[in-house]
Amino acid sequence: MEQKCSAVIIGVGPEQGLGASLASFFAGKGLHVFIAGRSEDKLHKIADKIRQTGGTVSTVLADATVERDVAHLFKMAQLDGYRVDIAAYNVDSNIPSPLLETDAEIFTTLWRQNCLGAFFFGKEAVKAMKGWHKGTLFFTGATASLRAKPPFTAFAAAKAGLRALAQGMAREFGPQGIHVVHTIIDGVIDGERARNQFPDYVKAKGMDGLLQLDAIVETYWAIHQQHPSAWTHELDLRPFKEPF
Amino acid sequence: MEQKCSAVIIGVGPEQGLGASLASFFAGKGLHVFIAGRSEDKLHKIADKIRQTGGTVSTVLADATVERDVAHLFKMAQLDGYRVDIAAYNVDSNIPSPLLETDAEIFTTLWRQNCLGAFFFGKEAVKAMKGWHKGTLFFTGATASLRAKPPFTAFAAAKAGLRALAQGMAREFGPQGIHVVHTIIDGVIDGERARNQFPDYVKAKGMDGLLQLDAIVETYWAIHQQHPSAWTHELDLRPFKEPF
Amino acid sequence: MEQKCSAVIIGVGPEQGLGASLASFFAGKGLHVFIAGRSEDKLHKIADKIRQTGGTVSTVLADATVERDVAHLFKMAQLDGYRVDIAAYNVDSNIPSPLLETDAEIFTTLWRQNCLGAFFFGKEAVKAMKGWHKGTLFFTGATASLRAKPPFTAFAAAKAGLRALAQGMAREFGPQGIHVVHTIIDGVIDGERARNQFPDYVKAKGMDGLLQLDAIVETYWAIHQQHPSAWTHELDLRPFKEPF
Amino acid sequence: MEQKCSAVIIGVGPEQGLGASLASFFAGKGLHVFIAGRSEDKLHKIADKIRQTGGTVSTVLADATVERDVAHLFKMAQLDGYRVDIAAYNVDSNIPSPLLETDAEIFTTLWRQNCLGAFFFGKEAVKAMKGWHKGTLFFTGATASLRAKPPFTAFAAAKAGLRALAQGMAREFGPQGIHVVHTIIDGVIDGERARNQFPDYVKAKGMDGLLQLDAIVETYWAIHQQHPSAWTHELDLRPFKEPF
Repeated sequence: MEQKCSAVIIGVGPEQGLGASLASFFAGKGLHVFIAGRSEDKLHKIADKIRQTGGTVSTVLADATVERDVAHLFKMAQLDGYRVDIAAYNVDSNIPSPLLETDAEIFTTLWRQNCLGAFFFGKEAVKAMKGWHKGTLFFTGATASLRAKPPFTAFAAAKAGLRALAQGMAREFGPQGIHVVHTIIDGVIDGERARNQFPDYVKAKGMDGLLQLDAIVETYWAIHQQHPSAWTHELDLRPFKEPF
Repeated sequence: MEQKCSAVIIGVGPEQGLGASLASFFAGKGLHVFIAGRSEDKLHKIADKIRQTGGTVSTVLADATVERDVAHLFKMAQLDGYRVDIAAYNVDSNIPSPLLETDAEIFTTLWRQNCLGAFFFGKEAVKAMKGWHKGTLFFTGATASLRAKPPFTAFAAAKAGLRALAQGMAREFGPQGIHVVHTIIDGVIDGERARNQFPDYVKAKGMDGLLQLDAIVETYWAIHQQHPSAWTHELDLRPFKEPF
Repeated sequence: MEQKCSAVIIGVGPEQGLGASLASFFAGKGLHVFIAGRSEDKLHKIADKIRQTGGTVSTVLADATVERDVAHLFKMAQLDGYRVDIAAYNVDSNIPSPLLETDAEIFTTLWRQNCLGAFFFGKEAVKAMKGWHKGTLFFTGATASLRAKPPFTAFAAAKAGLRALAQGMAREFGPQGIHVVHTIIDGVIDGERARNQFPDYVKAKGMDGLLQLDAIVETYWAIHQQHPSAWTHELDLRPFKEPF
Repeated sequence: MEQKCSAVIIGVGPEQGLGASLASFFAGKGLHVFIAGRSEDKLHKIADKIRQTGGTVSTVLADATVERDVAHLFKMAQLDGYRVDIAAYNVDSNIPSPLLETDAEIFTTLWRQNCLGAFFFGKEAVKAMKGWHKGTLFFTGATASLRAKPPFTAFAAAKAGLRALAQGMAREFGPQGIHVVHTIIDGVIDGERARNQFPDYVKAKGMDGLLQLDAIVETYWAIHQQHPSAWTHELDLRPFKEPF
């Protein structure tokens, strides 16, 4: 891979999380990675780990729901002369809530984090990529992207919006050489968040029943490698024994 | 029909519009109608017309995207001792915009009007209906509810969110006797808005090619009349010669 | 309604079944009904009942999967000078079967009854209707039309085929004035078949949990009555408390 | 890769076709390939080419729509002690036909080739794979798998059936370790068939506008390589500038 290629990933938090795993993997493939998130501490831990394995990385403190943060993130990447080959929107927040207990703040927050931030990110990514007529832009969806079930109605409304955003962008920017991808993670990722938030579920599923981080990342890479004559816009990712 | 039944409709604007048509029709069926919108003038014109034909109506100035306005609207209905039999969210705003020309304000406004307001409205409607274990709650969708195409990506993101909201609410409140309906208007309604905003399109389609207001309203009523053992949650409405 | 209007319904069997209910209802609305099925005995019982309530009816022995039977059915209708206003394909056969226990015969039979017969029927209906540039053609689908779950994979493959047939026909013949409708019956109909085949399920659901025949029929009629400027192609019908 | 791994591919015809390309690629990865089709001549040409590049291959004359042919194919593979790691159903036949010009034979033939044969093949593949609790089973779909448009209604009815079959099988056999995949080829493959059947279309699209065989094959391989904790069941493949 030539010099100066880079990947920009937002929503990087826990070390055992999808953002960190994507960053480590892409760094391992020789891309400089820009990792962005809201916790400087977490970003530094991940950056250290990437550097220890020979990768190069920049950390950018950024809140995906703040437009100027997102613009700044991509400015940083381009300032240093990097081409953005991959941009991954990995912010995903979920708050289970029966509808009558869902207030305007929950409904809005979920939309801001799962959808509005993706709009900011997608727009800046396209601006960075379109001069090169190439690049892959990932949006990470969930089961709820396709089906709204209580108590996840507010989450589903946000994720459905994200899916439409990704689809509209694919139709608009695919012909300009930008590969827009929407992944549907249909199951629980075996990471820090699940282990902290619902340890019993994790235990009940067993290791086989959770999506392994490495496994997801391999597929993102394979999709990035696709030849423009046969691009995938949408695909599901699901543990083999997950009911669907 | 017994006394004191009512319908609450928000998004009532032009006389030749879906909100006004629903209101007139429901009033004709003997329901007291609460019509809400942002223009007092327009509401009064419609109310006058309804009264002239023997209906009863209350007008409520309300912005669907302002939660207290929506709460006030349903409070008004209940204060007077009305049961809310039908609630129709009829706000629909669309701004065509290529993605790179779409700013945060457009993206947010479309979501607020097509999705957030529907959340406020749906929640209040359910609160008003659930004591009776009955009522029909309509959300009006569009072609873009199912497919995102530029330059309607922001609109589609909002409408897809609305669809998920409606679906999650149907699953949550159907078993409690509340009939949640999502209609997909796949085409252009023959009303004031279309005639003003894109007269050439209207002319090109011909009268047959636009959805007639009366025709839509008849179907809303038929869906409201459905027996609980065979409810429709989602249906499309499309001119016979509309390509799809 | 003018003279000489008619409805053609195939898949008429038990008295407490959708075919019989559609026939009785349409006859009650003044249409002459042609009812077709494989049991002369059952057809006569239903015909007698229709006549007793003042309707007019013809019985035609026909197997929907035999092309000449279907052609003959429509020939009969037209011979007598009737215009075919409604044609309903109501054949629905389901055999639960894990895939490895499903043989070629089961797989083929389900397809012949749910899909091939619908093709024969749809084609003849269009031929009968197209001179008038009007008519409504109903195809009855099921939950499995949208989702394939074992042990209903073979059934789902057939019903998905039916759905595609209906959709393609709607696109082809809608602009010619023929209203093609696909209904998704998402639940169990409260009829003879369910009571005989799975009495425990029927008991467990309670009357509210099953689709009432009259309720379904009302919606079919409402859809038939739709103005061409606002036609529904697809809609679901589901008991209010059915999980989905 | 260990000894005795194999891939079974049916629907192998032209040298510049998806079946042949999958076979060559899998052979290049060290799998013994069983290639099946209706033309002995074509099979031999492809086999020769595979052997010239160091691969090992067996040819089996088989019509996918004949159950005993399909059973024989898998018997051959297992007789020689091969484990079936990959099975790919690659039969795809399309006949554009307005509905009123579509006869029973066209409708049935398309279903037999696109759906019934897939049922035979899928069933035998599962039988061969289930003892090992692993294996990847590919079904190749098309744009029409999701949307039925004239003059492709009969084709769509068959492809929708195939999609349901694949989905039901994924739900039934995924938990047993068998990875069932449905690919949606949304565009035209740059192969012999397109060049012969619609040369003008091929020319108009330009090389970029057609799916390259190698590109498709890379993705099939990547999907086969997926870890069971993050399997894809369905994905689209589309030239970057294909409208959708």
